[in-house]
Amino acid sequence: VGDDGTRVVILGVGLHPFGRFPEKSMSDLGRTAALEAMKDAGVGYNDIQAGYCGRVVASTGVGLNIFEELGSTGIPVTNVELACASSSRAAEFAATAIKAGVHDMCMVVGVEKMPRGMLDLGQSGGGGMSFAGAMGLALLPGEYAMQARRHMALYGSKREHFAQVSVKAHKNGCLNPYAQYQVLLSLEEVMNSRMVADPITLYQCCPTSDGASAVVLCSEETARRYTTKPVYLTVSMGATPIYTPGEVELSEGPTAWLAQKVYEKAGLGPEDVDVAQCHDAFTPGEVLAVEKLGFCEEGEGGVFVWEGNTEITGKKPMNTDGGLLSRGHPMGATGGAMITEIVRQLRGQAGPRQVANAKVGMIHNAGVGGIQLSILTT
Amino acid sequence: VGDDGTRVVILGVGLHPFGRFPEKSMSDLGRTAALEAMKDAGVGYNDIQAGYCGRVVASTGVGLNIFEELGSTGIPVTNVELACASSSRAAEFAATAIKAGVHDMCMVVGVEKMPRGMLDLGQSGGGGMSFAGAMGLALLPGEYAMQARRHMALYGSKREHFAQVSVKAHKNGCLNPYAQYQVLLSLEEVMNSRMVADPITLYQCCPTSDGASAVVLCSEETARRYTTKPVYLTVSMGATPIYTPGEVELSEGPTAWLAQKVYEKAGLGPEDVDVAQCHDAFTPGEVLAVEKLGFCEEGEGGVFVWEGNTEITGKKPMNTDGGLLSRGHPMGATGGAMITEIVRQLRGQAGPRQVANAKVGMIHNAGVGGIQLSILTT
Repeated sequence: VGDDGTRVVILGVGLHPFGRFPEKSMSDLGRTAALEAMKDAGVGYNDIQAGYCGRVVASTGVGLNIFEELGSTGIPVTNVELACASSSRAAEFAATAIKAGVHDMCMVVGVEKMPRGMLDLGQSGGGGMSFAGAMGLALLPGEYAMQARRHMALYGSKREHFAQVSVKAHKNGCLNPYAQYQVLLSLEEVMNSRMVADPITLYQCCPTSDGASAVVLCSEETARRYTTKPVYLTVSMGATPIYTPGEVELSEGPTAWLAQKVYEKAGLGPEDVDVAQCHDAFTPGEVLAVEKLGFCEEGEGGVFVWEGNTEITGKKPMNTDGGLLSRGHPMGATGGAMITEIVRQLRGQAGPRQVANAKVGMIHNAGVGGIQLSILTT
Repeated sequence: VGDDGTRVVILGVGLHPFGRFPEKSMSDLGRTAALEAMKDAGVGYNDIQAGYCGRVVASTGVGLNIFEELGSTGIPVTNVELACASSSRAAEFAATAIKAGVHDMCMVVGVEKMPRGMLDLGQSGGGGMSFAGAMGLALLPGEYAMQARRHMALYGSKREHFAQVSVKAHKNGCLNPYAQYQVLLSLEEVMNSRMVADPITLYQCCPTSDGASAVVLCSEETARRYTTKPVYLTVSMGATPIYTPGEVELSEGPTAWLAQKVYEKAGLGPEDVDVAQCHDAFTPGEVLAVEKLGFCEEGEGGVFVWEGNTEITGKKPMNTDGGLLSRGHPMGATGGAMITEIVRQLRGQAGPRQVANAKVGMIHNAGVGGIQLSILTT
């Protein structure tokens, strides 16, 4: 982030378990994650100089509620919203404020209690409907299914390739006590579950989740007081879709284009990435991400995943915590959960799902409104 | 904003008229304001490197919709939400990104189509209710009325003092072609309108509005290519309420405390402010703001307003464009509208409502979630 010398450290991370918690408020969820992140960072609430709340569905005031119940210190708190990428973008904003010298230590809390049923994002409120919505692309499984069908037609990918993403995700989820689903699914179970949008079956869709994540960020200088093994948020950048006449963009947003910029800024390439989190809200997400992030050639994503390259023990371990499919996807909390997992991996604290010698982690977080790519390093 | 040498310029401002526009979408409103701001700045959409959308009620995707219809350039776009102060906070974020060297030119679009009726902000979504909501303070006229009653009890302020704020606001609104109400109201009409929350009558409440604002910001260096008379966003800072046991905070958030910090950072004092915009969603807002911002002594706000000091020709002209009461208050758009008015005043472009020799402008923007104070200078 930024162009001067200041490096930003992710000092602490925390989660409230993902699942369904009808008896808990958003403040309850957010506070739990925040307290865990501050404990992990070794800081108190008085050390936090600004708050950012990533949330999508909940109404105004949520950010204030969460932070004011942690303490009455008067710090600015802002809701940052970018659909599924809300708390990733919020982390970029926090890092930017640290680089600009506006704040020295910030906390991002991502939180959501997802409403029941399918989310219709076509209505932008106030009577307006987006172009995509008017074209029937407001329901996300349909959008991902069209990308998968296109991929099958162009490159010969098979249904099994997509389904395998979910099998692997649930295998990883079993190793994560914070995951919404900690249960193995066979390839047969995934493929035979109810069809939602061909080729995407029910078990290839992320669940409806409640949960929260929290991330404490600070300047490198301040971090020295707390840790000798910092994890850096080396780059975090976002983009919106680019429509080029006659071209079909597979995946949400100009991922490959942004990935180039992010690698360049970090002085790294896809070959340097040891572990990654990608936006597998629906299984085609991972197949497309491995291509766009440069982990394999265009068109080979299906086979790449099918051959086990994104398993914890594979060449490019991905969604080691179960991903959106198994860990769950409370929209506002997801970006922070991805950061949490990568930080734990880079610190060697991922327990049974630890990737050996992980030094560089990448996060791909996509949502209605754009994408956010981040590289974390030790 | 920030502590290094980079100064941020507000290069262009624009509005869609405030009012009720059932036939227009949020994108229609936002696009109109954005095009006006870019024209005012003398830039094209390709010059904009990041977008920020201030909006409260509308669902996710609104920011993307507005910006992607202006061009398919792939820039990051983020929804920033802080209730009534959304686009003020978004402007701070844009300025911070410019100071950090992340972006060089950014645009903030604030937009809203307010739903009919009274906004109930007590529900934070997900089944949770804020403390304030549970205490019955979720409806804002009640909250402002309690502040007014307290002020009357402590300092002897009269009902007329509050009502006069609306009389003055509507007088100014008549001079603003973008204002929702361009009609004179007498003190008697204001005081005799329907009681909403004693002492606040209907005409002391801001209307239900649709509208949009846009602000183009860039670094001082870049601004030199476009203008020889820049207006600077010298300071912009936010805060959340601080609860001190046994003390009653009049006004939303620790306004006086934050004002101190803002003046200090700008190297200015209340005596230097030539024109101000304050959050007069309900008439007590202005009475309290003039005290908290240091324009008069604590307790004297009612008399200060009553005596005409906040008129365009007064000592501290305030809400020269009609304010929230007469110009209107589409929540997400309000902060940008305040910036727009101050920029026009500092440039000497405010026409019939021009304040003579305005060099320093102040903005007080309060909302559920906190306050934002900004100082603009020539």
